[in-house]
Amino acid sequence: MTTNRYLADIAVTCDQDFSVISNAAIDVTQGRISFIGPQSEAPPCDGPVHHLGGLIMPGLVNSHAHTPMTLVRGAGDGLPLLDWLTQVMWPREGEMTPEDVLWGMRLGASEMLRAGVTSTCEMYLFEESVVEASTDAGIRLVMTPGIISALHADDFGSTESRIAAIVAFHQHYHDPEQRVTVGFGPHSAYDLPLELCGEIAAAARDLDALLHIHVCETQDEGIELESAHEGRSTVQLLAEHGVLDGRVLAAHSVWLDDADIETYAQHEVSVAHCPVSNMKLASGVARVPAMRSRGIEVGLATDGPASNDDLDLWQEIKFAPLLARVSTLDASAMRPQDALRMATVEGSRAIGNFDVGSLERGQRADFIRINLDDPTFVPVTCSDELIAHLAWSGSGRHVTDVWVGGEQVVADRQCLKVDVKQAMAEVQSRGVRLAEKSGT
Amino acid sequence: MTTNRYLADIAVTCDQDFSVISNAAIDVTQGRISFIGPQSEAPPCDGPVHHLGGLIMPGLVNSHAHTPMTLVRGAGDGLPLLDWLTQVMWPREGEMTPEDVLWGMRLGASEMLRAGVTSTCEMYLFEESVVEASTDAGIRLVMTPGIISALHADDFGSTESRIAAIVAFHQHYHDPEQRVTVGFGPHSAYDLPLELCGEIAAAARDLDALLHIHVCETQDEGIELESAHEGRSTVQLLAEHGVLDGRVLAAHSVWLDDADIETYAQHEVSVAHCPVSNMKLASGVARVPAMRSRGIEVGLATDGPASNDDLDLWQEIKFAPLLARVSTLDASAMRPQDALRMATVEGSRAIGNFDVGSLERGQRADFIRINLDDPTFVPVTCSDELIAHLAWSGSGRHVTDVWVGGEQVVADRQCLKVDVKQAMAEVQSRGVRLAEKSGT
Repeated sequence: MTTNRYLADIAVTCDQDFSVISNAAIDVTQGRISFIGPQSEAPPCDGPVHHLGGLIMPGLVNSHAHTPMTLVRGAGDGLPLLDWLTQVMWPREGEMTPEDVLWGMRLGASEMLRAGVTSTCEMYLFEESVVEASTDAGIRLVMTPGIISALHADDFGSTESRIAAIVAFHQHYHDPEQRVTVGFGPHSAYDLPLELCGEIAAAARDLDALLHIHVCETQDEGIELESAHEGRSTVQLLAEHGVLDGRVLAAHSVWLDDADIETYAQHEVSVAHCPVSNMKLASGVARVPAMRSRGIEVGLATDGPASNDDLDLWQEIKFAPLLARVSTLDASAMRPQDALRMATVEGSRAIGNFDVGSLERGQRADFIRINLDDPTFVPVTCSDELIAHLAWSGSGRHVTDVWVGGEQVVADRQCLKVDVKQAMAEVQSRGVRLAEKSGT
Repeated sequence: MTTNRYLADIAVTCDQDFSVISNAAIDVTQGRISFIGPQSEAPPCDGPVHHLGGLIMPGLVNSHAHTPMTLVRGAGDGLPLLDWLTQVMWPREGEMTPEDVLWGMRLGASEMLRAGVTSTCEMYLFEESVVEASTDAGIRLVMTPGIISALHADDFGSTESRIAAIVAFHQHYHDPEQRVTVGFGPHSAYDLPLELCGEIAAAARDLDALLHIHVCETQDEGIELESAHEGRSTVQLLAEHGVLDGRVLAAHSVWLDDADIETYAQHEVSVAHCPVSNMKLASGVARVPAMRSRGIEVGLATDGPASNDDLDLWQEIKFAPLLARVSTLDASAMRPQDALRMATVEGSRAIGNFDVGSLERGQRADFIRINLDDPTFVPVTCSDELIAHLAWSGSGRHVTDVWVGGEQVVADRQCLKVDVKQAMAEVQSRGVRLAEKSGT
């Protein structure tokens, strides 16, 4: 049982106290952290010692993504959300094959890993392809196979058989030791009947699995549903149908009122906050400070690469606080520490992984190295300033090395397990085919 | 008279029609563009031919910055604007020497050039240091020496002698051929008497020089002034005192009403829009689409690195449209093309440089090369998608080479004219000294 020791100039643990350790040592044994602390307090180690220098911190967690949409990145820019979905995205996605999804996910996983994202929570179709590509690349995956009203019966059969297929998929693929956990991905209450959402939630509860659903992304999406139910809010309707009773991750959650936030808190619903996507698609501003002050766990997320269009989660670390600040006209509305916690430990808990996201003994060894030798990190006159630099100026370009479960998957800025050139060529030719076949 | 020819896979000209040229050639003669077009249409060339590949476009223009504030980057995060200025920024800045400013500017200029920013419009004190550092680094500079109420009499004498000193500074340093133009930088109408602003504006008009002033950055800053003048708006008061009669660049301009925008349009005032700074300091959302639809020229700007904290203007290219979209809940409020124009040709005009910012015959040869061989630029199924990728995913890390006035100043991601390591070490030690001496 070999222990690997990694030495860094500084470790940002993202633990409860947001501890920052100078001259840090981190020991990794069987994929988990067996020691983290100052080098001077480290126990004897007879395994390999790696002198990393720089800064180490937990890998980032992307709490809501449709990563295979790399295949349709940049298409239909500037349309309102529903037009963008119905006129461009869904026609192109309707042409996708499992092989397309495999390559789209492979490219996206490489982009995320290169940027220091070590976990991603995916909602998409062709879930076997997503698992295969993620496993190849080495990223930790929460896979919630999508359930949408417009499922192609040829590929997926009825909605009932789709639920049964996801249960079987869970039996086959759910294995945290292999970096894969499985949940359910019903699209939304405006796309699926409430009763069906309730059935899916019950199936998820039976497996203690995550239910991952879009909620209140845009202001208008719930109008029809809510007026059909005497004006009760979408969140209220979801609660009434038992959809919020298990482990629930509600993506976006932009248009919540105080009562909705209270309902989330009581049901321990988590939120995936997508500030860049919400800005680009003009969806609105989620009330993140209000949610977090009520104890709701909020992760950060890129959403799909077609609504961002970058999978570098460092942009969300910067723009979640910036959006909270400008929308409240309060520069203290969210601090750099909050953003870094949401992007790591809080996001990991939000997607159901409680042993990932912080540098603490016993946690899985998902961590990244940051090169501090960069003008944007200068000067540092106190440790608060280093954290500020990390949040405001940190980006994928500063990430040099990445480990997932103790395995190194990025070294010196190169993905070790994906042929990125090949993935780029495949996504280019497949993206052109999707545009041509769909006539968009 | 040698002509250098540069060949690229694609050129984004940022000209009036936003022309995109495949297999492009750009000829540079005596620092200006003597040909731009398809390689098949290029005239004979007996000078050196450089096979760049990739994408070429105009260098970016930072239309409002206080770049030597690299020395105080990251300090005092989370405070409201006025507290942040009075409790942290001004005490630290009060300790700065000309030598500090030289090093702060040198580091910041290197960061900008590395990110593809070829022009910057600076408002700061110790203007000789700013010119020296900019000239050393090779960046094009519009220097508007700052005039603030709290000038140290020891360093700067009276306000009147400060104006005379700037006139003399203009005589000595203003030389577009040497990449330096000079204007005046009165801080704001809330910091300086309106009559004095009018005098400074008259001095600027005498020299046909730019007047660069902060206007309506925060909601509260004008309350005292406006209530002392029967509720007339700050913009109205500036107009009444002749401050808007010459060539005027109004930074921020967040809190304008329709009448203020009309006043800007009538006086041909330009605006420097700082979306990231305005978000970070919780200042508010400038009404950029409304201004531009009224014909006002708007540049993009980082503001000082202490309120951003990154000098990579690509973030403004992404977040200017995103902020416009989310604040209007309209995904068509601003397009990628608009952002790229504001960051180049429109920004250059806003700061008074009319022969910079687009790839057109006769313009000064400030251009950059982008490496398109990156996953975030895949796929491209039409040229609109390439422009979308550039705006949404482009960043300093994609910039490989930079030319200013035909001189190459960045090659293969390295600044050719700044010792960046030395600048980092100097800013680190000087930043610590400023924190210690000011007790902040």
